[in-house]
Amino acid sequence: METISGGVTAAMGFQAAGVYAGIKKQKQKKDMALVYSTVPAVAAGTFTTNVVKAAPVKWDMKLMKSGKKLQAMVINSGIANACTGTKGDLDNETMAKAMAKELGIEVDSVLTASTGVIGREMPMDAIVAGTALLKEALSDGIEAGHMAAESIMTTDTISKECAVTIELGGKTVTIGAMSKGSGMIHPNMATMIGILTTDAAISKELLQEVISESVQKSFNMISVDRDTSTNDTYVALANGLAGNEEITTKNADYAKFFDAVKYVSTTLAKKMAGDGEGASKLIEARVLNAASYEDAVLLSKSIITSNLVKAAVFGNDANCGRFMCAMGYSGVQFNPDIVDLFFESSEGKIMVVENGIGLVFNEELATKILSSKEVTVIANMKAGQSTATAWGCDLTYDYVKINADYRS
Amino acid sequence: METISGGVTAAMGFQAAGVYAGIKKQKQKKDMALVYSTVPAVAAGTFTTNVVKAAPVKWDMKLMKSGKKLQAMVINSGIANACTGTKGDLDNETMAKAMAKELGIEVDSVLTASTGVIGREMPMDAIVAGTALLKEALSDGIEAGHMAAESIMTTDTISKECAVTIELGGKTVTIGAMSKGSGMIHPNMATMIGILTTDAAISKELLQEVISESVQKSFNMISVDRDTSTNDTYVALANGLAGNEEITTKNADYAKFFDAVKYVSTTLAKKMAGDGEGASKLIEARVLNAASYEDAVLLSKSIITSNLVKAAVFGNDANCGRFMCAMGYSGVQFNPDIVDLFFESSEGKIMVVENGIGLVFNEELATKILSSKEVTVIANMKAGQSTATAWGCDLTYDYVKINADYRS
Repeated sequence: METISGGVTAAMGFQAAGVYAGIKKQKQKKDMALVYSTVPAVAAGTFTTNVVKAAPVKWDMKLMKSGKKLQAMVINSGIANACTGTKGDLDNETMAKAMAKELGIEVDSVLTASTGVIGREMPMDAIVAGTALLKEALSDGIEAGHMAAESIMTTDTISKECAVTIELGGKTVTIGAMSKGSGMIHPNMATMIGILTTDAAISKELLQEVISESVQKSFNMISVDRDTSTNDTYVALANGLAGNEEITTKNADYAKFFDAVKYVSTTLAKKMAGDGEGASKLIEARVLNAASYEDAVLLSKSIITSNLVKAAVFGNDANCGRFMCAMGYSGVQFNPDIVDLFFESSEGKIMVVENGIGLVFNEELATKILSSKEVTVIANMKAGQSTATAWGCDLTYDYVKINADYRS
Repeated sequence: METISGGVTAAMGFQAAGVYAGIKKQKQKKDMALVYSTVPAVAAGTFTTNVVKAAPVKWDMKLMKSGKKLQAMVINSGIANACTGTKGDLDNETMAKAMAKELGIEVDSVLTASTGVIGREMPMDAIVAGTALLKEALSDGIEAGHMAAESIMTTDTISKECAVTIELGGKTVTIGAMSKGSGMIHPNMATMIGILTTDAAISKELLQEVISESVQKSFNMISVDRDTSTNDTYVALANGLAGNEEITTKNADYAKFFDAVKYVSTTLAKKMAGDGEGASKLIEARVLNAASYEDAVLLSKSIITSNLVKAAVFGNDANCGRFMCAMGYSGVQFNPDIVDLFFESSEGKIMVVENGIGLVFNEELATKILSSKEVTVIANMKAGQSTATAWGCDLTYDYVKINADYRS
């Protein structure tokens, strides 16, 4: 596997665009994106488990169910089109129709996504006009993919893209993806918005399995604020242009493809956690030797979602009790009296709890470790063989600032 | 029922003390408290469900199980005596022993509690000396109870006390209590530390039922930061000095007593939520007409624990989508398309969502309502008859500040 530059336009036959359509107030901020495959593509996706689902989520779930090949995804940022009732569903369909008309394809091959303020109506004049701008701007190449990645940002401070190539039966297969964060991030089955494109030939069933499984170990392992969004969407389009022998069984090619998709998804997930709203650093929680994988997942997620852990890491405060406390209420039954806890970063590694007892440690070194941009906490449960890693970010003044007046 | 001044010393035969023993760095901050019943009292309690339990929690659970009457509770603030291993258990027993010796009673009639930094050893010289100071300061009256309430504060900004009287068979029965917050507050079975004293005569079994049930509707319905502490403790001592006929069945006296305990517990719980770390206001979430009581509890708690809701309320931002989103991921299955949402305070009431759709509302009035010190959000689920209320607080810069460097 080789990492390459680019995102959703990295794979053969994929084009993209990103434009300013007038949805956001500030004109310098792009707010509509298009991802397009020149040929129909096998599609798979995972979506939010929130009971309150945005109109585009309901639309995409329907398209995925149809089993049809799909060809495009149109996305707007600024307004989430959630809590908008039947009107919201109609607006969403209008957006898909307008995009389909511009592209000369069927409306039921156009996925949609929206992100932004919940409970507001979509400005349909701007959106319909935006689809024409997107068609006009549509092109190949890294830059086009980058424009699309920028257009789906809301409170994100950096755009998130990743691409890799793998060899399958002598053919080069490319996988690219983009996603956005950065608040209301606690994905459950999927992330806020992510789209993965690949020229691999693979059956719809196996593509869905690859996406569902890799999401469990990537996007579903991050949290910025424990708030599972109404709009979480992660979709994959595979157009088969790489010419590899179609993956229809779980053979060696499948394993290679799975690993590559997992790598791309995990890379984006970590970028989202590190760019969480107001975040100054990435927190990685690695739970070792848990009694089961489920336990390891619950323990690691409990650490990175604790407000007290997050605030302590922001303050470079090696307050080990907060990490123990967060594991203690995770719902997992474990013996606290055998747990070891470590902090690690590029600055070094330090043990802070041994067999459940807080140690008197070198505070200066601990502070130095916690001051890094990426901080890892390691918990050795000594209860079994299972391991899991979760990613989050610190809780800062800026998180409060951003969310105290998000709508204005 | 009549509300009266005072706290743990309001009921007959209860004395208290609060002193500075040298556990906290700042000398003006008292750090040890004692509550004492002049005669042995029936005892009941609820404790944290966190797997990581502090030494005093384990001690108290053992005493409660013994079924014996108890007579005193000694509490220290500044250090939690959690994640301290066998040494912590010994230190806790030493504290109980020293207190028992000063009071001339058996060690197994002395409850203990600790609150503060996790993972640090107890300064036993200061604590043993502190028990002598407590004995010296022990006295009747409102002021003594107030000293005790002040001594258990950590990041609390106000002490929390409440007392009421009721008539049972012509006798006046008094119930008083104190508690402390204000971070790591997401009680599950109990609260950080709370102690209720009453001169009622009641059987141990029924006292335990009253405490367990009333905790469900009071302390277990508040959250400051979703962090369930290692030290949560709520205990009740009933010494029978009021002379009422002992409550041994669920008769009319039981109902009266239950309502009074629930009132006292709820009053303290709301004070804790409103005085959450860094909080500038109390948030009350009232869920009406849910399909079941369990649903109503989950929905109301999901609202008050959402960081995005909490930050929006801090910013007086009537961002109704965040409330809908929080209910959506609560785990409850409901029809979002029939839900109505309102904001209410002393400034008025406004509907912001009707049948699941965000309304265009009077922003000026909404901001005014949200600017109040106590803000209520009401969700009408239109799905059944069940109702629940939960209490939380806003997420502010000060919460981050307090917790970025709690230990120093």
